[in-house]
This record gives sequence, C-alpha cells and structure tokens, in this order.
Amino acid sequence: MSRSGSDASNDPAGRPLPWERLSEELITHCPVFDFVSRRMRHPRRGTEADFYVLKSRNWVNVLPITPEGEVVMVRQYRFGIEALSWEIPGGVMDAGEEPVAAGLRELEEETGFVPRSSRLLGSISPNPAILDNRCYFVLADHVTPTGSLAWDEHEELETRLFAMDDVYAMAQRGEIAHSLVLNALFLFYPEWQRRQARRRS
Amino acid sequence: MSRSGSDASNDPAGRPLPWERLSEELITHCPVFDFVSRRMRHPRRGTEADFYVLKSRNWVNVLPITPEGEVVMVRQYRFGIEALSWEIPGGVMDAGEEPVAAGLRELEEETGFVPRSSRLLGSISPNPAILDNRCYFVLADHVTPTGSLAWDEHEELETRLFAMDDVYAMAQRGEIAHSLVLNALFLFYPEWQRRQARRRS
Repeated sequence: MSRSGSDASNDPAGRPLPWERLSEELITHCPVFDFVSRRMRHPRRGTEADFYVLKSRNWVNVLPITPEGEVVMVRQYRFGIEALSWEIPGGVMDAGEEPVAAGLRELEEETGFVPRSSRLLGSISPNPAILDNRCYFVLADHVTPTGSLAWDEHEELETRLFAMDDVYAMAQRGEIAHSLVLNALFLFYPEWQRRQARRRS
Repeated sequence: MSRSGSDASNDPAGRPLPWERLSEELITHCPVFDFVSRRMRHPRRGTEADFYVLKSRNWVNVLPITPEGEVVMVRQYRFGIEALSWEIPGGVMDAGEEPVAAGLRELEEETGFVPRSSRLLGSISPNPAILDNRCYFVLADHVTPTGSLAWDEHEELETRLFAMDDVYAMAQRGEIAHSLVLNALFLFYPEWQRRQARRRS
C-alpha cells in the first residue's frame, strides 16, 4: 500500500523525495562532533528550510563475551542524562580506522580485555534525523583480562561481568537503556539463540 | 568483578562518581532541541570540563500492527544522513503529553491509522552521552486506516505494510537501520514470540 498524502507537489508515485543541500554552516565545533546548520530545498515543492545536524566520526560498540559466556559491561557517568549508565565498551573511531580494530582498541583501553576472535555484527544509524554518522557493532569472543587499561582524560569506568541471559533480562526491564547497547543485543540475538541451541543439543 | 583503574582519586570501591554541574550555557536554540554547554566538576578529582548536550523533549515511536499481523512502516527523507529511511511512525512529544497518547497522535498524523488497543512497550535513552531525553515505545494493535493524515510542514511520508517476519529480517540485514526503530523491535520481540507460539498451539 502507498499513500501520497494531500500535497499535490509530491512525487506522483507518492514517494518522498530527497532534498537538495544548498549550503552548510558550522555553528559550533565540539570534541565529538561539529554542530552545523544545513539549508535544504525540496526539489519539487521548492520550499527551503534550515535543519540542524551533528556531523560526527563513526562510532563503535563491542559485545565482549568471556569463555564462560559472560558479557563484559562497563558503568560510567554520562553527561547527557547526568547519571551512571550500564553499557558495553565503545567510543569514537579514529580517522581511517576499521570498525573491528577500533572496537578492540576501545575494549582494551576501557576494560583491559582482549579477545581470541572477533567479527563485525552490523551497523546502524544512531539518529538519521540529526546525526550523519554510523555506529558499528563488533562481537569479541573468548575475551580475557590480559591487556592494558588506557582511559581517556575524563573516563572513569566500573567493569563487571554479567551472564548473557541476565543482560537480556536487564535490557527488557530497562536497567540497560542506552539505545546503541540495545542495538548490539538485538543484532546478536539470532547468534545467541543458535549458540544456546548448540549447547542444548 | 570490579576494577578501579590507575587513578587514586577514584571512589575507593572502584565505582565511577556522578559529576557536579557548575553551570549551563545555551549555545543554540533549535526547533527540536536546545544545544547547551555544561561546565562539570568531578567531585573527588576536582577536575573541570565543558560537555556539550542536546536538551530535547521526550520522543515517542509507535509499532502499529494490523489485524493481519503486518507492521505499518513509513519512509521519509532524513536530513542527518541525507537519504530516505524506513522507520515506524514517531515524533516529539508535546509538553505534558502522555507517551501512549503522543504515540497514537503521531501514528494518526503520519499514516492515518488508528488502533483498537495500545500500551507502553518501554522506554530508553536515545544517547545518554549527548542527549538528556527519553524515547518511549508504544505498541498499537489492530490498527486500521480510519483516521486523518496531518503532516508537519516539511513532512512527506510513504506508508507501507510489511509482515512482521520481514521487518525482523530487514532489521537484521541492515535495511532498517534507525537505532530507535530497532529498539522498538527489540522490546517487542518477547511478545512477538509469545504471539507466534499461541498461533502455532
């Protein structure tokens, strides 16, 4: 089914159209992102408007699993919600860095854990309306605390292991509430079900 | 397990501490959020730093399911990624508005669909590091196209029905990539499994 709405200037097939970017103005340069204003024009309606966007490097989050099947989680203070938050390790990717390498770097820097194997789980848009970047998710298997911590200037982290079942229960109860962490758990879920089925068989 | 890191100024128990907010300065007022800078101080280290935060009203996303078990999805142009994006209906909650009422309002405005029953699925933090708000998720059951469209000034939406199995497959393949939409699918998944089990029995 497709509905075209009431505006006769839409695409005749009822599809929304991509807008044209006329200009972009830097409002504020921040450590993690540039805050910009984009002047955009609708190609058929001709209407123009300014939209605010955060331009950011890509992010990476890592799901680290121990040989016993536990998840390595970190708790840290978050300045948006002004509260502590249970999350998986992650951070901003360096320029030119590959997602898996970036994820394993963040994992070791934040927790000291290092995996025996790892792979990309997938990637998503953190917020396609106001952010231009992607967040990648890395599965890190058979992790052990054999690396070296290297916290960023303002980082302060508590590291704790949780059984995977408990992590999914915490997520459903709202005790894990970071959108991106829940994305990692969602993308891993089919693989988690396969692993459980193998263990039972 | 708990690791305290190398900084002797941490909490003795190795826990990260909440910072104190010293001041907050408005940088830019935007339609959807206020962009502010917060001067923060670590309570034990005494270090101070500025952190950038988007202060926003809460958001709501709705998972609308037809009597045939299909999901009502919308495709729209997103100015962060400058591309079209398949999503579920949603938007910014009005001041004082309840999540379910806000979700059903957005659902009807964007798609014209109205449910027979609805309930809150849960809520999350869209990004605890840089956003101060929550996003609520509403399950809207037995929706039918009996309402009235009322698009916002710049909105232009394609509405289409997808089988729930296809929606989960699209999400795992990356064809649905909005972090918050994936959160709704994650929170609904246990209920979806129960419904499938009931249908089979």
